Amino acid sequence: MKEYVLEIAKRAKEASMVLANVSTDVKNKALNLMADLIEENAEKIKLENSKDLKAGEEAGLSKAMLDRLLLDDRRIRAMAVGLREIAALPDPVGEIVKMWKRPNGLMIGKMRVPLGVVGIIYESRPNVTADATGLCVKSGNAVILRGGSEAINSNRIIVDILKEACEKTGIPSDVVSFIDSTDRSAVYEMLKLDEFIDIVIPRGGEGLIRFVAENARMPVVYHYKGVCHTFVDKYADLKMAEEICFNAKVQRPGVCNAMETMLVHRDVAKEFLPVMCNRFKDAGVELRGCETTKSIVPWVKEAREEDWYEEYLDLILSIKVVNSIDEAIGHINRYGSHHSDAIVTENYERAMRFLKEVDSAAVYVNASTRFTDGFEFGLGAEMGISTQKLHVRGPMGLEDLTCCKYVILGCGHIRE
Amino acid sequence: MKEYVLEIAKRAKEASMVLANVSTDVKNKALNLMADLIEENAEKIKLENSKDLKAGEEAGLSKAMLDRLLLDDRRIRAMAVGLREIAALPDPVGEIVKMWKRPNGLMIGKMRVPLGVVGIIYESRPNVTADATGLCVKSGNAVILRGGSEAINSNRIIVDILKEACEKTGIPSDVVSFIDSTDRSAVYEMLKLDEFIDIVIPRGGEGLIRFVAENARMPVVYHYKGVCHTFVDKYADLKMAEEICFNAKVQRPGVCNAMETMLVHRDVAKEFLPVMCNRFKDAGVELRGCETTKSIVPWVKEAREEDWYEEYLDLILSIKVVNSIDEAIGHINRYGSHHSDAIVTENYERAMRFLKEVDSAAVYVNASTRFTDGFEFGLGAEMGISTQKLHVRGPMGLEDLTCCKYVILGCGHIRE
Repeated sequence: MKEYVLEIAKRAKEASMVLANVSTDVKNKALNLMADLIEENAEKIKLENSKDLKAGEEAGLSKAMLDRLLLDDRRIRAMAVGLREIAALPDPVGEIVKMWKRPNGLMIGKMRVPLGVVGIIYESRPNVTADATGLCVKSGNAVILRGGSEAINSNRIIVDILKEACEKTGIPSDVVSFIDSTDRSAVYEMLKLDEFIDIVIPRGGEGLIRFVAENARMPVVYHYKGVCHTFVDKYADLKMAEEICFNAKVQRPGVCNAMETMLVHRDVAKEFLPVMCNRFKDAGVELRGCETTKSIVPWVKEAREEDWYEEYLDLILSIKVVNSIDEAIGHINRYGSHHSDAIVTENYERAMRFLKEVDSAAVYVNASTRFTDGFEFGLGAEMGISTQKLHVRGPMGLEDLTCCKYVILGCGHIRE
Repeated sequence: MKEYVLEIAKRAKEASMVLANVSTDVKNKALNLMADLIEENAEKIKLENSKDLKAGEEAGLSKAMLDRLLLDDRRIRAMAVGLREIAALPDPVGEIVKMWKRPNGLMIGKMRVPLGVVGIIYESRPNVTADATGLCVKSGNAVILRGGSEAINSNRIIVDILKEACEKTGIPSDVVSFIDSTDRSAVYEMLKLDEFIDIVIPRGGEGLIRFVAENARMPVVYHYKGVCHTFVDKYADLKMAEEICFNAKVQRPGVCNAMETMLVHRDVAKEFLPVMCNRFKDAGVELRGCETTKSIVPWVKEAREEDWYEEYLDLILSIKVVNSIDEAIGHINRYGSHHSDAIVTENYERAMRFLKEVDSAAVYVNASTRFTDGFEFGLGAEMGISTQKLHVRGPMGLEDLTCCKYVILGCGHIRE
């Protein structure tokens, strides 16, 4: 296993050095061809996918897991559309982010260059295979894919198609590599190869992510949890607050950018909470409130200290009434997971304070936290979402798969 | 020791949260007061420094080490000047790097925020204590300083002065923390505290850096070596090339941005090498050349394979004649340390190719690699130089001590 993974990583590194200098046109051609070939091979993909689904059923996977695994015509088309969208985005490689002149006339600039080799370790959804490859190839990086064992047949055929598109456009097919093994030791071997793999992105359950974060020798970009808050300020438009909170909790409760705790300013709690809680109740949301919440809406369950840390990923919501914006910000920074948090307010100064002081990857004014997503942000797709501070925070798109090197233009400058 | 370091880290984290919201004016006031107090306390600093020097002599430190340790009036004034220069630079915190509008009207931007707590582990030169503190405080970060045992008295008094300046301007003095122990286990304990320390920067010998890189749980920014190249192209202005190469090797050979290998295009080797080699010889530089070099300048020593990897940090230079720009770029990317590399050429297309294809933190056209330095780049000072790709490459200044969070401005946006 060690030699197998090492060989893949070495070849990926070699290929990445070629890819770094491939023109934007050729990369776009490859991405568009990937999209075409995926559509052309839809039947084959569905056939391989059916093997995974059958094995998944036999292994007793949950209905939700099987749904995530499923590739139907709509989802196959969506993969192709995603690749074409990435092809249409600007190429970040070679961009001069800024350039300035020193007093001695030396021009100093920062140029975007690819990271090199990106490893991605993910579970379940096979469309990640195409998304991740599209983002990496467009940003000049080789990608090493390690999908979940439950999707191995689907991932294998998708990778074959993506590699074929590379070859046909003259890009080394090793820019797309696939760890074709369900053995977990492959992940462990990958994480030791910091000489060849520049960054690793784990996407999946907290167990997988902790394993990667603790064992990787290279930088890891990840988020553990999404404990997202919405703070309904005393200056909120309460109807707007109701729509935003409802959307953030109910539209898709099982994802990381859904709201888990709602904070309400005490001055509006009596007006806001009864209406809001009834709406949540009608949508089947279980509510767990602080003492003040319970004094206003007595049928709400009691929240415990643990609730403030909890990522329910379900139709459950904790509610706290706060005395001030300071208490709201303090609560978010203490109990939150630094993912996505929102304020609803019509007060300018409080909106600015919230933006500045909440220490999260994405901070919102008057919008649902559900927008934290590479596609929604206009990044085309995302490699993952980071709640770390280095090297990026939030959804990771094309630019975030590059770094800047200094370029210095002189005319015979020497140092005195 | 464990409790001691933990307590410092916890208090630094608390202080960093306060500092993140301190105004630019107050931070600048603190930096300028630090400068004033350092100048006012010059005699006290020299007294403490003399203790370190005496202990260093007794311990048999080399003359070079003792010189690095020494604080005289000129160097004390330089510390103060450095702090004032950092105060005069723009505050990166709160800058909106970019902002765009999505089709649905949502405004999405990236705002610079401090990293939090920065740990720096360094050897010898006590002026790093003031530089690092100035950069961290200005960029809104708390700093934990762990200087070398040989400079402990000097560092202690400088830290006391810096803390006093914080207190007097209303900034929590815990934004400047000092590990007041010469026990190496303190470093080990620091490296485990990823919950409180956001990034660690080791500056010193390769042994220290490897120890930190291998044991740290948080991101580490470092460089191991500076194997820097200058490529004299066939289209070079040979007089300019001579001045640049001489400066890059001789002006200060013991530093990481000095040239260690000179690459010369074969078409100009016969004209360039005899003159250049004689000038190096006169300056006392030992030369080690490839076969072709020796065929042109027979008195040059023979270079071995190991020489191409070597960071001499001394008046020694390896020389290789190459057949093409491809061979030059290939050599640099293979044997170099991705630090600083230069081309000397009057050919536009080759200059552009070199800038694009050389995979180093700083890539030069027609200038000496000796400019890779935070001060020379206009960053005021530097926390260190990174040859990694994440989170920054090259000299690390104020901006590089921040990261970007997403700020999203809506007007009731919910996700469909």
